[in-house]
Amino acid sequence: MLKSLFIANRGEIAVRIIRAARELGIRTIQAYSVADADSLAVKMADEAVNIGPPHAAKSYLNIPVIIEAARKAGADAIHPGYGFLAENAGFADAVVAAGMIFVGPSGDAIRTMGDKVSARIAAEKAGVPVVPGSGGRIEDLTETTQIAERIGFPIMIKAAAGGGGRGIRIANTAEEFAQFLPQAQGEAQAAFGDGGLYIEKVITKARHIEVQVLGDGERAIHCFERECSLQRRRQKLWEEAPSPVLPDNVRQKLCASAVALAEAVHYKGAGTIEYLYDDESHDFYFIEMNTRIQVEHPVTEFVTGLDLVREMILIAGGERLKHRQDDIKRSGHAIEVRINAEDPAKNFMPFPGVVKGLRVPGGPGTRFDTMLYDGYQVPPFYDSLLGKLIVWDETRERAIDRMKRALGELEIGGLKTTKPLHLLLADDAAVRRGQFHTRWLEPWLEANAAKLAE
Amino acid sequence: MLKSLFIANRGEIAVRIIRAARELGIRTIQAYSVADADSLAVKMADEAVNIGPPHAAKSYLNIPVIIEAARKAGADAIHPGYGFLAENAGFADAVVAAGMIFVGPSGDAIRTMGDKVSARIAAEKAGVPVVPGSGGRIEDLTETTQIAERIGFPIMIKAAAGGGGRGIRIANTAEEFAQFLPQAQGEAQAAFGDGGLYIEKVITKARHIEVQVLGDGERAIHCFERECSLQRRRQKLWEEAPSPVLPDNVRQKLCASAVALAEAVHYKGAGTIEYLYDDESHDFYFIEMNTRIQVEHPVTEFVTGLDLVREMILIAGGERLKHRQDDIKRSGHAIEVRINAEDPAKNFMPFPGVVKGLRVPGGPGTRFDTMLYDGYQVPPFYDSLLGKLIVWDETRERAIDRMKRALGELEIGGLKTTKPLHLLLADDAAVRRGQFHTRWLEPWLEANAAKLAE
Repeated sequence: MLKSLFIANRGEIAVRIIRAARELGIRTIQAYSVADADSLAVKMADEAVNIGPPHAAKSYLNIPVIIEAARKAGADAIHPGYGFLAENAGFADAVVAAGMIFVGPSGDAIRTMGDKVSARIAAEKAGVPVVPGSGGRIEDLTETTQIAERIGFPIMIKAAAGGGGRGIRIANTAEEFAQFLPQAQGEAQAAFGDGGLYIEKVITKARHIEVQVLGDGERAIHCFERECSLQRRRQKLWEEAPSPVLPDNVRQKLCASAVALAEAVHYKGAGTIEYLYDDESHDFYFIEMNTRIQVEHPVTEFVTGLDLVREMILIAGGERLKHRQDDIKRSGHAIEVRINAEDPAKNFMPFPGVVKGLRVPGGPGTRFDTMLYDGYQVPPFYDSLLGKLIVWDETRERAIDRMKRALGELEIGGLKTTKPLHLLLADDAAVRRGQFHTRWLEPWLEANAAKLAE
Repeated sequence: MLKSLFIANRGEIAVRIIRAARELGIRTIQAYSVADADSLAVKMADEAVNIGPPHAAKSYLNIPVIIEAARKAGADAIHPGYGFLAENAGFADAVVAAGMIFVGPSGDAIRTMGDKVSARIAAEKAGVPVVPGSGGRIEDLTETTQIAERIGFPIMIKAAAGGGGRGIRIANTAEEFAQFLPQAQGEAQAAFGDGGLYIEKVITKARHIEVQVLGDGERAIHCFERECSLQRRRQKLWEEAPSPVLPDNVRQKLCASAVALAEAVHYKGAGTIEYLYDDESHDFYFIEMNTRIQVEHPVTEFVTGLDLVREMILIAGGERLKHRQDDIKRSGHAIEVRINAEDPAKNFMPFPGVVKGLRVPGGPGTRFDTMLYDGYQVPPFYDSLLGKLIVWDETRERAIDRMKRALGELEIGGLKTTKPLHLLLADDAAVRRGQFHTRWLEPWLEANAAKLAE
């Protein structure tokens, strides 16, 4: 069992990690940038260490400084949280090289699953369905056309050397494909000096469903799925478990595939395997793995009763998974909404400031994970997440009613937040019916701009 | 379904009722005395009605004023909470006579179960074990001696006309019994003008175990038990579910007996049937029924996932119980501790005052039901309960660790509270082992007075 834990993160996840460690009797050492000197995590931890200036590159992303601070504080292990260095294989290796334990998978597992191509290969090897496509770069246009006919339209044509959404075209028909393909190749050659392309089936109206896994390096278990289809610019805003649409037989296959993949890479700790799910065909496709604790992990904690952060820490301390797959039961329905310091009436403009008149929701099945306290100055340097409101109830409908009630209780004076957006979503008929997909929220936001501005 | 609900109570339970009603879309009307004009319940309710001066006899216990206020506000129903008028059969009748719904059992059921003798008779009829004794008043000393020999010592001799602990003697042997009996009779005659006595076996080192029931007037179900043996002056301070000592076969019998009794009296709403449990013989004995929601109900909510206050309201609105007995599953372990405005270092002296720097615990499996907010003036007129800290975890040991962590986070500046007591209890070896009984805490408090004074 670990005796002390260095927390190389900030905000609500740092508070979350302190809670789990404290219940295990582990001493906590909180890293903080100058901008976070007054943070709740600093107040709560047993010890706190200044790791540098506000700019993350100089503090929360500064590997040598963090390793040295943790070593000096006598930490047994480092928890990376999410974001920052959580999926940096070099950091995981550096922690181990410095004689400490990285709370998460090995650097190699992060490397394998962090690279899109090697992750896809690992998934295919483990028998996990991937999005149909060329499976890698292709040069021969004739061959490409044959693959396209096999997988069906619409098809995305991507520049192999591209990234960040650049060099992407969507062909809806064979004619468009024949027209776009040489253009894309020419453009890729011009833009990246590399005419290599790859193609992938476009899953229209896909739903984002992800499976929580826990592994101890040998054995892995799943903790069922979460659905996170309500996204804006690929940022999840509303997450729930179970998915409102997944049939039980598909759930079983989906979760089993996640376990197979986690075991194939000897996964250690908590991880999330993300899929696209086609609600019409019931097909699911591996997208990527997040090799860390996920923002939305409390949704799974509510429906399974597990403490995922505790499990991560126990596994890092050398324990084997104590739960067998059959021990993991699921009950009721949980929903999490992200409360960000953003003004949804003004295109989600960030809104840092000083918190005044905080009122936290309470009562049955209600949890608010936050780093806020009255008088806290939300620094402008980091992401805008202020807290996560998570509710549980016996059914999805009840959970939405509870979410409305809890949102009504939440007061964060002094800031604009995403609370009004979630109150509107909770009353939306399509949301109530669970009828949405990953591209549903953005047009909905446009259509409801007037209501959000009220 | 009810459209509006009048809340004839205050404090944390009023807040709790508002939450349940709001999730059901029911308008809430909060009664308040002048002393509670700034209460959280008043702030949260849709409407609030002043029902008189601070003194409860003139406000929260004033039946005509409450009925009139509820009628005027157009309330469909009245929720009595716990304490005050919650177990007043006349009040239940008056609510109905005024054309409204009483959220609870019928006046008759309250009457039957509220009177110790008729409750005991009802229990016996339903086949529920009662504490062995004379079963009622006896005049004939010879007969009494025969009964005493049958049930065994120690035996409690009570004046039939007595009450509140007056006129009670404990005989540990036949000799003492022979000596005390005529004395007790003479004293009863002198004190109450009535020499009638009754006798009852004393269960030494009894544990207090109670069963939560829900009934719709015809069918009843149980929601398993709570153990509340850690008491000071018969005030529960620490409650948990499941009981740490109850074997499963006894649990089944105990819970089945509670269902039988609830069905026998056509019980409607949420109720609690209290038992003494002898951990050595595994015998249990009916003590009394509380015909209302119980302070410690969240413990049951955590282990079963039910919302008991919601169920009460649905049943009052005319719904039948929607859960079958088999639907009620139990998982993990929950503990509640009462945070009172009392100084445990000074013999639990009440400590009203103004709350400053409130910090509410959060995180997984943590719930704090309270009416506190920053700047709230705790009035000196009512009971000292400030809030209930309830935690859940996979096992009892984990739950105690979580309770310690959550207690550590709880800050209620400006007041003395029972928090230090609970921190000590959570570290006590006997508490950790679950080895206690209803008379365990008081000597423990004396033995730990120095630690509490630190």
